[in-house]
Amino acid sequence: MARIKRIATASAPVNIAVVKYWGKKDTKLILPTNDSLSVTLDQDHLRSLTSSAAVEVEQQEQEQQQGESVAASPSKDRLWLNGVEEEIGSEGRLRTCIDQLRDARRKVEGEDGGVEKIAHLPLHIVSENNFPTAAGLASSASGFAALVWSISSLYQLNSDSGGHLSTSALSRVARQGSGSACRSLFGGFVAWQGGEAKDGSDSLALQVAERQHWKDLHAIICVISDAKKGTPSTAGMQRTVQTSAALQSRISHVVPERMQRITSAIKQRDFDAFAKETMRDSNNFHATCLDTSPPIFYLNDTSRLVIQLVEELNRSSEQAAAGAGAIAAYTFDAGPNAVLYAPEKNVPLLLSLIRHYFPNADFDDPFKLLPSLPQDGLTSADLPSTFNKSVIPVSEAGAVRRLIHTRVGDGPRILGAGSSSTDDAHLIGQDALPIRLQRVKRV
Amino acid sequence: MARIKRIATASAPVNIAVVKYWGKKDTKLILPTNDSLSVTLDQDHLRSLTSSAAVEVEQQEQEQQQGESVAASPSKDRLWLNGVEEEIGSEGRLRTCIDQLRDARRKVEGEDGGVEKIAHLPLHIVSENNFPTAAGLASSASGFAALVWSISSLYQLNSDSGGHLSTSALSRVARQGSGSACRSLFGGFVAWQGGEAKDGSDSLALQVAERQHWKDLHAIICVISDAKKGTPSTAGMQRTVQTSAALQSRISHVVPERMQRITSAIKQRDFDAFAKETMRDSNNFHATCLDTSPPIFYLNDTSRLVIQLVEELNRSSEQAAAGAGAIAAYTFDAGPNAVLYAPEKNVPLLLSLIRHYFPNADFDDPFKLLPSLPQDGLTSADLPSTFNKSVIPVSEAGAVRRLIHTRVGDGPRILGAGSSSTDDAHLIGQDALPIRLQRVKRV
Repeated sequence: MARIKRIATASAPVNIAVVKYWGKKDTKLILPTNDSLSVTLDQDHLRSLTSSAAVEVEQQEQEQQQGESVAASPSKDRLWLNGVEEEIGSEGRLRTCIDQLRDARRKVEGEDGGVEKIAHLPLHIVSENNFPTAAGLASSASGFAALVWSISSLYQLNSDSGGHLSTSALSRVARQGSGSACRSLFGGFVAWQGGEAKDGSDSLALQVAERQHWKDLHAIICVISDAKKGTPSTAGMQRTVQTSAALQSRISHVVPERMQRITSAIKQRDFDAFAKETMRDSNNFHATCLDTSPPIFYLNDTSRLVIQLVEELNRSSEQAAAGAGAIAAYTFDAGPNAVLYAPEKNVPLLLSLIRHYFPNADFDDPFKLLPSLPQDGLTSADLPSTFNKSVIPVSEAGAVRRLIHTRVGDGPRILGAGSSSTDDAHLIGQDALPIRLQRVKRV
Repeated sequence: MARIKRIATASAPVNIAVVKYWGKKDTKLILPTNDSLSVTLDQDHLRSLTSSAAVEVEQQEQEQQQGESVAASPSKDRLWLNGVEEEIGSEGRLRTCIDQLRDARRKVEGEDGGVEKIAHLPLHIVSENNFPTAAGLASSASGFAALVWSISSLYQLNSDSGGHLSTSALSRVARQGSGSACRSLFGGFVAWQGGEAKDGSDSLALQVAERQHWKDLHAIICVISDAKKGTPSTAGMQRTVQTSAALQSRISHVVPERMQRITSAIKQRDFDAFAKETMRDSNNFHATCLDTSPPIFYLNDTSRLVIQLVEELNRSSEQAAAGAGAIAAYTFDAGPNAVLYAPEKNVPLLLSLIRHYFPNADFDDPFKLLPSLPQDGLTSADLPSTFNKSVIPVSEAGAVRRLIHTRVGDGPRILGAGSSSTDDAHLIGQDALPIRLQRVKRV
């Protein structure tokens, strides 16, 4: 039997890049070939939730353990991910994150004798996402962010818990779990500064603007059906590094200039400029994938149709009123799914268009961000007068499988921390094992 | 009534670029932003056929004409294209080509009084392709090549007709009709040297190797169904010039280095190197299209599947026997259709694979380049042992609509020239009007 000595639970948000990360210059430290920038989505909607507990084992087991070296305790670390126990192993990214946080705690314990000794205890970690794989979202960013945030809270390392590590410093740890996870440690608009140092010390996340600065920015995730499995991004991006000429111009010119322009657009809440940079970066990223040998494809025919629809909407809007600017922006990660960004006022029109051209998408609208759902059909008087309704055909039912409507959100939250798990927030019970809470509201 | 003073008929081949032309630095002179290189296909299979006649009008009409200026005669030039009369107009690309050839004839007539005076006579031009639009091939290259070749033969300008203009010199004229037409003036393997001169004097075609040098190179054209009309290439390429960062690296590094490597591959008949450069250039070209704002798409989901199939075939071949090299190469112009190149010995396997994964393609095999058609189904023992049969799914019937099997071919041919059209070769009758010969064997 084991029991909890200390526990902490954190939630962390998903982020969707508008300037994409693609390519590592150091695959072990996860140092990217270029800066990137993302929008953090609202964790009231989509989130990873992680409880971490330092666990004391019973007398008999303790004696057995003390016969081994102190370094043996990490081998007792355990992880349950979405209800299934996973092997942490003695190396790999998860181990790297845990070890770095444990080392930081050990250092604090060594420097201040009054601090409770927990660094030597095994960790039990339970993590759950409230969005299924079917939502088409990568869970590694929010997952590693929640893991880092919960362990750093458990160890009282982060400034929220009275510790000395800044969020950016912790983002360095999350980065080594999954590159883009570093950006999920902040809310709002977040840059991952690629950095110059060989040891990765300056490769970390920085907040460009907080959620409150531009809180009416909404997102619509269009989950697109695709029969084919794409190339895993970890393998794909290094093939691009090795073979694409277009990536070189992306690294040397395209991204550095875009980072400046999009940062300025965000600071000025200039949606038109933000949209243009976002769309061009997505296209530039997928162009470098296509320029890879053998080529990597993530966009499919439905993705192309979404692009053409949004481009026509923006074109006709600008034509109808010069200076009106873009109505929406699209961006695509390493998969066929579109994420559309738009100011709140444009969302009803955008949603009605998407639902018209891509009928029968599953949209139960769990977050109800609009007072009423837009009707199907192009009855909206808000459609620009020169919008070409035949720009794309109406797709067969289900080509866009699911729609999720959400918005910009804040950074990770500590939901509870202390010496017992009686608090409702935790995913681990007093017996140090996962509680199947069914508390996670599924999207 | 009008009658023929002199007539000439020429045929010209289609060419398919392996290093693509995309972008003009001078849209009037059609000066490309980069060199390109193509394979000329056999005109025994696919060709444009053009008759040009210098036409004397009857007495009454002549008098009427002599009341006008000499320069008025071009306004009587007439053109019939695939049986339909088209307006030549007083400007535009067709007019540019006709004027330049007429000026060259006029100069010869001025310098040598013994030469028959025909430059002042109106031209009647009749042109037909033996491949319908449904074949998915651009006809402007072979069309302008046949036009330039027939008029230069009519005017006895080209060296084949005893004139002083080299084929490369005439390619400058064809270039101004349609850029890639300059490459259809040679057989075999043809480079279009982009050139440096402002006036385009050094922007012309050069033969890299003739057909005989590598005559077992075959091509399979896969005509792919596509509901959507693509962006016209003339408009599309200038949008790329204006907006794509990837095009800049293509112009400055990618193409210059590739031209050297692929020229060397052709000279050494190194199919593996030829295939790799061909496929990478196609992907780099489509990447610059995707990098354009708004993005331009030519590849569709079926195109992607063809790419994945050929990549897997080459990968498994190389794995089965190191150094075996590529079995086939794919390339895509400004549309979804694939052109596959392969040495003759690889064609049965390639055809059987394509017909297995893309069933029900129309393939009546008019040219019968193989002693017997490969069977449908993957029964071939020639398939590399590690070929992954589930690399792509079997597509729905007709996703590849049509297959055309052809091979590398020779340059334009003069089929007949003289003072009367009694020769069977001509598409114009003694009355100076089109004969609907039904002589053109349709593909």
